[in-house]
Amino acid sequence: MQTVNKWDLFELTVTGPATGNPFTERHFGAAFTHNRETVSVEGFYDGEGVYKVRFMPSWEGVYTYRTFGDFAGAETAGTLTVGPAGPGNHGPVRVANEHHFAYEDGTPYYSVGTTCYVWPHQPDEVIAQTLQELDRGYFNKMRFCVFPKHYIHNFRDPQTFPYEGTPVDNAGLSEETFTYQADLSGNHWDFTRFCPEHFRRVERAIQALLERNIQADLILFHPYDRWGFSCMTREQDDLYLRYCIARFAAYRNVWWSLANEYDLLVTKTLADWEHTAALICAEDPYAHLRSIHNCMAFYDHARPWITHASLQRQDLYRHVEFTDEYRTRWSKPIVWDEIAYEGNIDMGWGNISGQELVRRFWEASLRGGYAGHGETFLDPENDILWWSHGGTLHGESPARIRFLHRILSETPGLGLKRGAGAFDETVGVPDTVMPQGMEIHYYGFGRPSFRDFIKPAEEQWKAEVIDTWEMTVTDAGVHSGKFRVPLPGKEYMAVRLTRVTG
Amino acid sequence: MQTVNKWDLFELTVTGPATGNPFTERHFGAAFTHNRETVSVEGFYDGEGVYKVRFMPSWEGVYTYRTFGDFAGAETAGTLTVGPAGPGNHGPVRVANEHHFAYEDGTPYYSVGTTCYVWPHQPDEVIAQTLQELDRGYFNKMRFCVFPKHYIHNFRDPQTFPYEGTPVDNAGLSEETFTYQADLSGNHWDFTRFCPEHFRRVERAIQALLERNIQADLILFHPYDRWGFSCMTREQDDLYLRYCIARFAAYRNVWWSLANEYDLLVTKTLADWEHTAALICAEDPYAHLRSIHNCMAFYDHARPWITHASLQRQDLYRHVEFTDEYRTRWSKPIVWDEIAYEGNIDMGWGNISGQELVRRFWEASLRGGYAGHGETFLDPENDILWWSHGGTLHGESPARIRFLHRILSETPGLGLKRGAGAFDETVGVPDTVMPQGMEIHYYGFGRPSFRDFIKPAEEQWKAEVIDTWEMTVTDAGVHSGKFRVPLPGKEYMAVRLTRVTG
Repeated sequence: MQTVNKWDLFELTVTGPATGNPFTERHFGAAFTHNRETVSVEGFYDGEGVYKVRFMPSWEGVYTYRTFGDFAGAETAGTLTVGPAGPGNHGPVRVANEHHFAYEDGTPYYSVGTTCYVWPHQPDEVIAQTLQELDRGYFNKMRFCVFPKHYIHNFRDPQTFPYEGTPVDNAGLSEETFTYQADLSGNHWDFTRFCPEHFRRVERAIQALLERNIQADLILFHPYDRWGFSCMTREQDDLYLRYCIARFAAYRNVWWSLANEYDLLVTKTLADWEHTAALICAEDPYAHLRSIHNCMAFYDHARPWITHASLQRQDLYRHVEFTDEYRTRWSKPIVWDEIAYEGNIDMGWGNISGQELVRRFWEASLRGGYAGHGETFLDPENDILWWSHGGTLHGESPARIRFLHRILSETPGLGLKRGAGAFDETVGVPDTVMPQGMEIHYYGFGRPSFRDFIKPAEEQWKAEVIDTWEMTVTDAGVHSGKFRVPLPGKEYMAVRLTRVTG
Repeated sequence: MQTVNKWDLFELTVTGPATGNPFTERHFGAAFTHNRETVSVEGFYDGEGVYKVRFMPSWEGVYTYRTFGDFAGAETAGTLTVGPAGPGNHGPVRVANEHHFAYEDGTPYYSVGTTCYVWPHQPDEVIAQTLQELDRGYFNKMRFCVFPKHYIHNFRDPQTFPYEGTPVDNAGLSEETFTYQADLSGNHWDFTRFCPEHFRRVERAIQALLERNIQADLILFHPYDRWGFSCMTREQDDLYLRYCIARFAAYRNVWWSLANEYDLLVTKTLADWEHTAALICAEDPYAHLRSIHNCMAFYDHARPWITHASLQRQDLYRHVEFTDEYRTRWSKPIVWDEIAYEGNIDMGWGNISGQELVRRFWEASLRGGYAGHGETFLDPENDILWWSHGGTLHGESPARIRFLHRILSETPGLGLKRGAGAFDETVGVPDTVMPQGMEIHYYGFGRPSFRDFIKPAEEQWKAEVIDTWEMTVTDAGVHSGKFRVPLPGKEYMAVRLTRVTG
């Protein structure tokens, strides 16, 4: 008897022909039937005559399945018994209400993300370091790419390539000669033959994140390319997308990010993106979260296939404070995946302080959105920067981001709501009021020495002072009516009020 | 022979009737004639039977004058010889080009302002402290009010009142009971009889600023009132305005600010403000600078009588970074007179750090606008806060603001212009390029470890690293072509490039 837990990955393997081009000439798949659903899933060729099909069951109980294909031995049948979700397995993340996420079992998901664009394509020891950092529980989402990256600090070749063939020689590449539109000559790829090991590296990354309760925000296309993966034909793109879906969709923690900085992908039109979106909507049996990330111009996040807005700030100053506007504009969750990184490189997008990044996280979160981390400290010896390679973290923000997640997880209900007051004396301090009797007042770079509050005389409210940088929560008594909470007159403080009676 | 220097104040005094109400029943004035101009100016009654008329000559050489009035002894005549402007006297400040100011003699004026709303109305020892601070040369503009102020930290009575009568009892006023719309009963004023000593206090303040090369940005109306000065009739307002013009306009450093937070003055309509503006335009012989300051909603700064936009930030986050938009919108100088104050009070408008305030000054200035300072540190013992009372400065920003002014004064030409690049690698860092071969690149809260620049091979550029917080300028060599300037990877740094040959 074959068994698997709900929302875990079930895989069937058959052997078949290795001749010709199995990636394009062969077809393999399966249908899984339960009294609540029938799911038809496409399989994929994994090299060496091995064909696989993967499935993520959404229901407990018995599924029957049949595999099918156009080669001898493709057709099998069997029974799969699905047990209850294991400990810590809450299912895929979904949009649970207009602006917020929850796991499929209803557990709220408060996103605190990071970015390591090409960490699966690094040497094993770097990947091991990355996982060691992730073990500390700083983040619950990571953005990364299927394709390798060509950019400043990214001139080394990846460990594997996604296609059979040979890459352009990377000797002589440097920051000095880098341009955004690389010369693609010198590459020799067969875009009809995948290199399965490259995709296995991505799968190991997804699985490692899954084991750490981290969502894998998988970037399917991006512009930072010297190999030509960003300017394949639509047919080649579709083949690639179907291969990704067949291999990755059964991992419950996958999110689809159609692109990083789609607007820099000059080879693609809006029609191409809409085509890609339609293909994913049609082929992904599980309706994983979908978005598309900008450099300058936002995509039209009102498009129905977009589940949440994955945003990069549009200039140095205007970003998380616009959470309210974009919530209203799109009526979807707002995820600020790029709001500048903690670091000290020359670029303005990669040299803010830990304090400033953490402030942006609090602003985004308390305005009812979500934020993303990245780290870009110069590393002259190894040139390993977390933002792209993973490795070791050097900054001060990760521990504070984890602390923020703790505070968010202690809020009642699902997701944070803005306070009702359009104008209070603080003029615009994000001020989160939950209907269940909790308020968090965050003062950002303000340094109040105290704050006054007014509550009904018949209610009792517990006051706590939160130092978002020192990561402390200090009791400030239980109060009714008008009361004053003393504060230390320094930055990055918050007051949490919780109704205890009344 | 009567003599005065160009742009200095010349005053004629006659004695006349003290009976009846000389403020409303008597008229006194003078006409000054030079071969380049004839200026007719209104005089004013200064109490005790003394009538005065004041004049600021704009030309060297000989003026003849005649005084006139409706009482015996009012008519006199004479000759006034005007000598060259004295040392440091550059005349009134004017709008010199679309976005910038200069003194009338052409010397650029880079505004670095502060606010002490009611400092002339404080006890003499506080005024002396204020002047001691101003002697340090931190600021070259100060905003303050003719009327006293009623607000938190402002419950003591002023030293004098502008009208004859008696004020409401201030006993029992406190932060606890403060409301924005005070009960005005209990006041007994004769709005037709000024108290000259109150206006002399204002004049001494203007004169003290003039002696320190500080512009007096005089606020004529404001909403923070428990005496009724904010809700007089139009006839009473006009009498007051004419009195202010007659007394103050001959001081070359006067600017007219029609209101602080005009939009909170619920008793006044836009028609009232336009009427006030028309009166000032008609009666001020010298066309001093004119603006009107908002709380929430900007006034329509496109109105022709407005010489420059005096702005308060509209929320906690969006302010000086919008300088570009407002330059374009109004084609006038942009002066951010309120962008939050250095301090630690409970209010969000009064508890930012010195670092943040100085950053806002640099942002505003390098985007081709100007900024204003204020300070609000709690003072439990004396309740003297610079923002309202003057007194002693406690913050870290003033010395840095003075340093910024030095850097601005070292720029060539008149006023700063934005760099042409709409998108460079730093995405929006304000980047000031002067046509005369100087550039200042400011990195704000960014912390680059270096920056690369490219200049034509045939040109030589001197590079200097400016630490805007430590107030240092460090030589970084002379370069051509592509070159790198090392930076310390910390906040608030700038690079100044000056073309030395080519």
